[in-house]
Amino acid sequence: METSAKIDASTLTIINNSNNPPIEADAVIIGAGPVGLFQVFELGLLEIKAHVIDSLPVVGGQCVELYPDKPIYDIPAVPVCTGQELTDNLLKQIAPFDPTFHLSQEVTVVERREDNRFNVETSVGTRFITKTIFIAAGVGSFQPRTIKSEGIDQFNDSQLFYRVKDPLQFHGKNLVICGGGDSALDWALNLVGKAESVVLLHRREDFRAAPASVAKMKQLCEDLEMQFLVGQVTGHEVKDGKLSEIKVTGPDGVTRRMPLDTLLVFFGLSPKLGPIAEWSLDIERKQLKVVDTEKFETNIPGIFAVGDINTYPGKKKLILSGFHEAALAAFGAAPYIFPDKKIHMQYTTTSPKLHKILGVESPVFD
Amino acid sequence: METSAKIDASTLTIINNSNNPPIEADAVIIGAGPVGLFQVFELGLLEIKAHVIDSLPVVGGQCVELYPDKPIYDIPAVPVCTGQELTDNLLKQIAPFDPTFHLSQEVTVVERREDNRFNVETSVGTRFITKTIFIAAGVGSFQPRTIKSEGIDQFNDSQLFYRVKDPLQFHGKNLVICGGGDSALDWALNLVGKAESVVLLHRREDFRAAPASVAKMKQLCEDLEMQFLVGQVTGHEVKDGKLSEIKVTGPDGVTRRMPLDTLLVFFGLSPKLGPIAEWSLDIERKQLKVVDTEKFETNIPGIFAVGDINTYPGKKKLILSGFHEAALAAFGAAPYIFPDKKIHMQYTTTSPKLHKILGVESPVFD
Repeated sequence: METSAKIDASTLTIINNSNNPPIEADAVIIGAGPVGLFQVFELGLLEIKAHVIDSLPVVGGQCVELYPDKPIYDIPAVPVCTGQELTDNLLKQIAPFDPTFHLSQEVTVVERREDNRFNVETSVGTRFITKTIFIAAGVGSFQPRTIKSEGIDQFNDSQLFYRVKDPLQFHGKNLVICGGGDSALDWALNLVGKAESVVLLHRREDFRAAPASVAKMKQLCEDLEMQFLVGQVTGHEVKDGKLSEIKVTGPDGVTRRMPLDTLLVFFGLSPKLGPIAEWSLDIERKQLKVVDTEKFETNIPGIFAVGDINTYPGKKKLILSGFHEAALAAFGAAPYIFPDKKIHMQYTTTSPKLHKILGVESPVFD
Repeated sequence: METSAKIDASTLTIINNSNNPPIEADAVIIGAGPVGLFQVFELGLLEIKAHVIDSLPVVGGQCVELYPDKPIYDIPAVPVCTGQELTDNLLKQIAPFDPTFHLSQEVTVVERREDNRFNVETSVGTRFITKTIFIAAGVGSFQPRTIKSEGIDQFNDSQLFYRVKDPLQFHGKNLVICGGGDSALDWALNLVGKAESVVLLHRREDFRAAPASVAKMKQLCEDLEMQFLVGQVTGHEVKDGKLSEIKVTGPDGVTRRMPLDTLLVFFGLSPKLGPIAEWSLDIERKQLKVVDTEKFETNIPGIFAVGDINTYPGKKKLILSGFHEAALAAFGAAPYIFPDKKIHMQYTTTSPKLHKILGVESPVFD
């Protein structure tokens, strides 16, 4: 499934926050999928403000990446909704709590401080000092699917690119663009005429991209402005330390050499656990084990795991279960944030205090 | 809070199903509140059909009894809804599974059979032979609040009534009707002119009933068709084995004698655990203990407890938690119903099988 289309150049301005002072936080949520968003809500009811980090440039996580328009039927009391509608409703629900989102960045560092809080740092240098961490990272962060040719990754970000940050660097180059989705087509159409040459390479004749883009691409090929080839990259050559050519195997089984300056690959995104794997958390089959189903805390006190990324006896990977876990994790975390406060369970239907927090009027009861 | 208004004579036709043969069932759910309704959904996804029993004449449980029009804010992805809207949405969601509702009846008998199934029987004689039971009874069944006068309960259903089943039996009688809500007012207005005399007794001048009913009652008092008195029943007299009079203490502190034939009391409903307390289930502070948070099964194999009625470490009485429990309990129960079938986790978004069960079209995936 093509999922990278939504990541376009406009969202990928180069950010570097490493010169900013760290943000002091009560709660940092890793993952802006539905469970991460509902974690904001449950923390908000307890008057805990949250920062939310996600590797994607948009909120919604898997729901929006994998099935924005596909119906979901098993959210209780919501007979049917799409992933995008679910996300939009959650955003509306958490609006009173005004969370801060830090998107298009991956958490790279989590370390315990001497004062028992955590240092958290992201791939663009955003830094936090936080009392608690909620990992709601689903199946992990979405990373571009890579091309398979042994040793080719040494050219990452010099001659091999999975994302376009600065389109100008491709002007005047001999480009090969791989993929059959919107990202591949959009960049081919964008760079034709600016690059020295553009070859679009896709493993079959069918495209997942918008038909209008495909039609435009075919017209450009007829006009000899660019080329389209059916085939797969099966190898590459290096000359003087540079990627000089790729080997392309066509549907006829014949492998041909294709010289190039730059290779752009848009094979969509796939989830990776990423740096989370290195934070000394108790991991079982790529899932974070929680100590109990009372608080959904990991083996590291102060770090909670909710949603698809956690595991415990009976765990079902249901969005609904993640919502329940987020509620209990919020109560579990409260003592780290308010060590002297007794947390009482209150109901949104009846509590004037919660009505104030939610910014709604308290109804009059008899 | 007055809650008995919705129980009127039309729903209280006398039902007796004890001559019917028992219904053979895979799953009987006790309680038609939101969690009981969602239990239907989760069982339905596993192709298990459910019968639902509730003591109230309507579905919705506490939500509809206690806050039909009051907003709820903490159902995930539903920024705000009333108890009635929540119920309506759940009914819509479970419609594909076509559950059978058995309302206005309380479960009185639960016993293990030799074939390892359960006999279940209700107060109106409906009988089931079922493989599994899901107790989603919330705070218990709603029972009329009773009048406090020692020994007066011996006149229950002969001279003392908390519900009206057959209004004809009150014609020609000297009636005292206690209460200040819609039920008390509606029955006073209904029976005036048919009964020999009607006295409405309420502890204060203010009424929770509809203002139009109150105005009508006051007019009837002015016309000397009935009487209204402020006071509380503080005792009673028995003569020849009959309830001959009640003692009413007024706001002036004086207690007066009031002869009568029949006493109707409408003090609203309050929840009672009821017969559940006698089924050898492991109970802690009126809550059913579950063995683990994997299946939410009670100490009796085959009986599950979900929603506000259960307890386990970390339990929060959230509707959301009941929904999660219902999902896991359904998976926990499946082996009792399909002992030879391996249950696979499937997703409503992607599973063609679940789409068929839900009666929706499968989208085409690439």
